[in-house]
Amino acid sequence: MEKIAEYFDKKDDVSLGKLLKEVENETPISFDILKHSSMRKGKAHIVGITGPPGSGKSTLVSKICKQLAAKGLQIGVVCIDPTSPFTQGALLGDRIRMQELAKTPNVFIKSLATRGNLGGLAASAADVVQVLDAYEKDVILIETVGVGQVEFDVLGIADTIVLVNVPGLGDTLQTLKAGIMEIADLYVINQADRPGANESVKDLKMMIRESGKVGWQPPILQTVATEEKGVKELIESIHEHKAHLKSTNLWKEKRQERNVARLDTMIQGLLSRKVEEYIKEEDGWQHRIQEVKEGKTDPFTVSHEIVNGLIHKNNSKSGGRYVK
Amino acid sequence: MEKIAEYFDKKDDVSLGKLLKEVENETPISFDILKHSSMRKGKAHIVGITGPPGSGKSTLVSKICKQLAAKGLQIGVVCIDPTSPFTQGALLGDRIRMQELAKTPNVFIKSLATRGNLGGLAASAADVVQVLDAYEKDVILIETVGVGQVEFDVLGIADTIVLVNVPGLGDTLQTLKAGIMEIADLYVINQADRPGANESVKDLKMMIRESGKVGWQPPILQTVATEEKGVKELIESIHEHKAHLKSTNLWKEKRQERNVARLDTMIQGLLSRKVEEYIKEEDGWQHRIQEVKEGKTDPFTVSHEIVNGLIHKNNSKSGGRYVK
Repeated sequence: MEKIAEYFDKKDDVSLGKLLKEVENETPISFDILKHSSMRKGKAHIVGITGPPGSGKSTLVSKICKQLAAKGLQIGVVCIDPTSPFTQGALLGDRIRMQELAKTPNVFIKSLATRGNLGGLAASAADVVQVLDAYEKDVILIETVGVGQVEFDVLGIADTIVLVNVPGLGDTLQTLKAGIMEIADLYVINQADRPGANESVKDLKMMIRESGKVGWQPPILQTVATEEKGVKELIESIHEHKAHLKSTNLWKEKRQERNVARLDTMIQGLLSRKVEEYIKEEDGWQHRIQEVKEGKTDPFTVSHEIVNGLIHKNNSKSGGRYVK
Repeated sequence: MEKIAEYFDKKDDVSLGKLLKEVENETPISFDILKHSSMRKGKAHIVGITGPPGSGKSTLVSKICKQLAAKGLQIGVVCIDPTSPFTQGALLGDRIRMQELAKTPNVFIKSLATRGNLGGLAASAADVVQVLDAYEKDVILIETVGVGQVEFDVLGIADTIVLVNVPGLGDTLQTLKAGIMEIADLYVINQADRPGANESVKDLKMMIRESGKVGWQPPILQTVATEEKGVKELIESIHEHKAHLKSTNLWKEKRQERNVARLDTMIQGLLSRKVEEYIKEEDGWQHRIQEVKEGKTDPFTVSHEIVNGLIHKNNSKSGGRYVK
């Protein structure tokens, strides 16, 4: 644990990279790293940047980083890469751009690939964000393609969610509507020099009005990320949202929510491991599971047996197996 | 339990609807319904139909149903509706079409809305499919917008996955590539009378070739669902895939996989409930959780306390709370 504290105190990219590698790979030491980092009070503003592929998110993130870093702020970027082993390279262009960004002083980038293990991604992202926060980053940007439940969960960590679109994305807008739209705190129409930008802004305005949202009214910004147009205004809006969160106690609530969510995730993870061990440890379970597999026994009965067995195993006189 | 068997034996839409309602709402009796249904050997071919909004999935599903029902087959349709409470009506047109379909003899429709509880949707869909299967449906069609992890999980139940696209969906294709593409067993270019259909077929062919998939080679079909063109050929392809699954033992493996997955889900669900009860039952936990919430204690320590407490509670001399 002392060594972990040292790594945290070093405040350099190499040490941070090592810590994150352990956490990402869920090595035995990762537990201690997370435990340690959870007690370091971070101050980071966590900003989720989402939008469909081709909307220019990555370019926008680069420009935001550049401007924030120039102010002397410490930035962490977490890129959620939805490519699978079968479709490697789909977003390769974006990643190359990110590597260039990684050379910017004050900017640290961490890519998280799903590698088929989609379920663990949101948890993994939360871990990485926590470590970056404990590493005293001022702003943490999470870049993700906001189409799936996992991305949705990832965005749940963020204080501020920015949804990036391009003009004339009729179909995609329709898709996004089904979930991601209402969670955005800021809307960006990127490539706003393309035809249809004003119409998209109008559409968004109507949608926001129809949603009848109370409190914070999401602004709609227009950017041309490639030319760095509108990026300054976007950053100002992001800061305004932070001020809003702080003034309404939502900032604190979000942090408390994250702590409880992490407790839940941890409990689930620990229990899964306990079940795994328990099934291996006692003979007979493999046979019982095989029966379920072959449809000879129903999974409802056996799940009760296993759970009751696990919980009462130290107490049961019958050995705990077929306890109801 | 006897009453449940009666409901299953009745084989009418009203009884089936009642059973599914219980299961969907997770009422106390739903456990018995699922237990009972899991021991009734179904024979249904489970077909997932997915694709972006606007691809004409619903129309295609209607036409497939119509043709299968005309052959005297019993069809169950499960519609996964990704609308949220905030965006009701996004897919309303589709739903109205579905209600018309519901009047077709031999066709039973069940809509599952996410209602914010996205996590439970895949489990819910699996339950509904199981009951439909036990109700001796010949074919179960699951219609879903294949963009999210939940939909991905839902499709995991299916024997055969049909991915519907329309010509010229460049951006959407890109999105879909990141996940859903490689799991399809059949590709459909719907609205194939629109320009760009041949190009889309060519793109798909290249993608399939590049994937280096062994075994079943996914065919690419062209349909115009509104005019019922190509639907017969699509149904033939679906049957061919079923024959392939049966001849390669994959049919059986899929069923075994589903049984084990259900056991896992059940165990997780039971354990979550046990944790909930345990936290309520013993004083002190609420205080401990509050400490985590406020950042005074780390979630890692407390999750271990709770899990160890739960598992050893009957055995522990110290009362089980702070056992490490």
